[in-house]
Amino acid sequence: MAEPSVLLVADLAGTFAFALNGALTAIRAVHVDIVGVIALGLITAVGGGIIRDILLGALPPATFVDWRYLAVAAAGGLLAFWFSPMLGRFTRSIDVLDAAGLSLFAVTGAAKALDLGVGPVQAIILGAITGVGGGTIRDVLIQRVPGVLSSGLYAIPALAGAMVVVIVVSTSPADRVFEAPVALLGAGTCFLIRVLGLYYSLDAPKPPRTS
Amino acid sequence: MAEPSVLLVADLAGTFAFALNGALTAIRAVHVDIVGVIALGLITAVGGGIIRDILLGALPPATFVDWRYLAVAAAGGLLAFWFSPMLGRFTRSIDVLDAAGLSLFAVTGAAKALDLGVGPVQAIILGAITGVGGGTIRDVLIQRVPGVLSSGLYAIPALAGAMVVVIVVSTSPADRVFEAPVALLGAGTCFLIRVLGLYYSLDAPKPPRTS
Amino acid sequence: MAEPSVLLVADLAGTFAFALNGALTAIRAVHVDIVGVIALGLITAVGGGIIRDILLGALPPATFVDWRYLAVAAAGGLLAFWFSPMLGRFTRSIDVLDAAGLSLFAVTGAAKALDLGVGPVQAIILGAITGVGGGTIRDVLIQRVPGVLSSGLYAIPALAGAMVVVIVVSTSPADRVFEAPVALLGAGTCFLIRVLGLYYSLDAPKPPRTS
Repeated sequence: MAEPSVLLVADLAGTFAFALNGALTAIRAVHVDIVGVIALGLITAVGGGIIRDILLGALPPATFVDWRYLAVAAAGGLLAFWFSPMLGRFTRSIDVLDAAGLSLFAVTGAAKALDLGVGPVQAIILGAITGVGGGTIRDVLIQRVPGVLSSGLYAIPALAGAMVVVIVVSTSPADRVFEAPVALLGAGTCFLIRVLGLYYSLDAPKPPRTS
Repeated sequence: MAEPSVLLVADLAGTFAFALNGALTAIRAVHVDIVGVIALGLITAVGGGIIRDILLGALPPATFVDWRYLAVAAAGGLLAFWFSPMLGRFTRSIDVLDAAGLSLFAVTGAAKALDLGVGPVQAIILGAITGVGGGTIRDVLIQRVPGVLSSGLYAIPALAGAMVVVIVVSTSPADRVFEAPVALLGAGTCFLIRVLGLYYSLDAPKPPRTS
Repeated sequence: MAEPSVLLVADLAGTFAFALNGALTAIRAVHVDIVGVIALGLITAVGGGIIRDILLGALPPATFVDWRYLAVAAAGGLLAFWFSPMLGRFTRSIDVLDAAGLSLFAVTGAAKALDLGVGPVQAIILGAITGVGGGTIRDVLIQRVPGVLSSGLYAIPALAGAMVVVIVVSTSPADRVFEAPVALLGAGTCFLIRVLGLYYSLDAPKPPRTS
C-alpha cells in the first residue's frame, strides 16, 4: 500500500467530490428536502464502496464504519444544500473533481479486492463498481435510468484504471506492489479517459437498431 | 434489553403495521397482483431490518431468519390484498400504526447497532435506516421517488428517536441500560414528532431554488 | 447433490439464457450503450444468486467468485448486443430458455438455502428470489415496475418448484436426498407452470378494485 495518509486524503477528497456532485444532481432532478439531499449525497459518496464490501463479504463496510467518510460526505451534501444555486457556475470544475473521485475509487476499490483475494476479473469489476455504484443507487432513487448504463464514458475509464492496477500488481514479482506509483498510473489512466470523454462528448458504442 | 416478550410483541406489531401500510400503498400506486402485494408488504416490513443487518454484517438477517416476522408481515399483506377497498376509511389509523412501527424500528435498530459495537453516529443512522429502509425499497420497486427523501417528516423523527437511545445508552454508566424506559423514551420522541408532523403537515427544509 | 457436472452445466445454461433475455429486454426498453447492455445482462443472470447469498451470509457470492458464471453471462450480453435486431424472431424460444433458467435457479437456490441451514419457508423464498431477483434489479435499473410484481406467472412457478424441492428433501429420511431426480421434479414443476402460464397468458389474482 502507498503511505496511508496520501491514500486516505485522496480517498476523502474523492468522497467529498462525489457527495457534492451527487447532492447537486439530486437537487436539480427532483424536489427533495434537506434529508433527501444529504442522504443522496452520502449514498453517492459511500454507496459504491458499500456494494464492493458486501460483495467481498468485508462487513461492516469500511466507509460506513469510518466516521471520517461519513463526515466528509455529509459536508459535501450540506454544501450542495446551501449553495446549489451558486454552484451551477462550477459545473465544469465539479465534473473534474468527480472524475478525480471516480479514478481514486476505481483504483482503491480494485486494490482492496485484490487484497481480499478475489480473482483479477472480479477485482476489475469491483474497482469499477466502487467508482460507479454510488451514483447508480442515487439515480435509481431519483427515478432516472443510471447515466452509467446509457451515455458518456463513465464505467469504461473506471474499468481501465482498475485494469491497470490489477495487471501491474498481478504481474509484479514483488510483495508490496500497490505503491503510490501504481495507484497514480491507474488513477491517471481513468482520469485521462474520463476527462477526454467529457471534453469530446464521447459515447460508448450503442446496440444496432432495427430501422 | 427490555423484557424480550414486550420488545418482541412491539416489534411484531410494527412489522404488521408496516406490511399492511406498504401493501396498501402498492395497491393504490400500481397494478400489482397477489404476488406483488404480498412481496411489497413483506419488503416494506422487513426491508429496513435487512439493510441494517447487511451493514452490520449480522447475516442471515434476523427478520428473515425468524419465521414470526415473515408470518406477521405476510398476514398484513394478505389483509391489504383482500380488504383494500374497505381499508381506505382507516387511512388515519393506519398512519398512526405506521408511526408506531417507525418508532419501534428506529429504537430497536439503534439498540441492535450499539450492541454490535458500531459508533454512535452509525447507530443513529442504522436506527433510522431500520425505520425507513423498507418503505424506500418499496417505493423504488413501484417507481416512486421515495417519500422519505422529499416530503413530510419521516426520517427526522426516526433519527431523533434513535439519537435519544444512543445518547442515553452512551452516557449511562450502568451496563444494562437499554431497558424498557429508554426504549419508551426513544420511541415516544419519534412517535410524537411523526404524529405532529402528520397533523400539521410539516415538511423538512427544502434547498433554495434559483428563481 | 446431483453430480456436480450435470448441475453445473444446467446452471450455466440458465445463466446464459437469463443474460441473453435480460440484455435483450434492456435494449428494447431504454437507450443503453454496450456497457449498459452487458451490465444489465450480467445483473439479470447473477443478481438473484447474489441476493440469495447476501441473505444467507454466504459471501462473497458464489456466482460472483466463479468466473465461469461471469464469462457465460457476459457472452449472453454480448450476443444480445450484436444480434438484437435478428433475435426478435426468436422471442418464443428465448422465453422457453428463460423458463428453463427460472426453473434451474429456483431449484438450485432452494437446495443451497437448505444446505446452509435456514428454515423451509425461508428456503422456498430464497429459491424464488434466486429465480426472480436478477430480473427485478434489471427492471428497477431500466425504470420499469418489475414484471414479477404485476403480470404473468413468474414468481408462482418459482415458488412451486422450490417448494417441491424443500418438501421432498425435508420429509426424506435419507441423508443425501438432493439428487438429480428431486432437482428434475422441482425444475419440471416450475417449468410446466411457467410455460402453461405463457401459453394461456395466465395471470395471478389481482386485488379487488373500488369501482
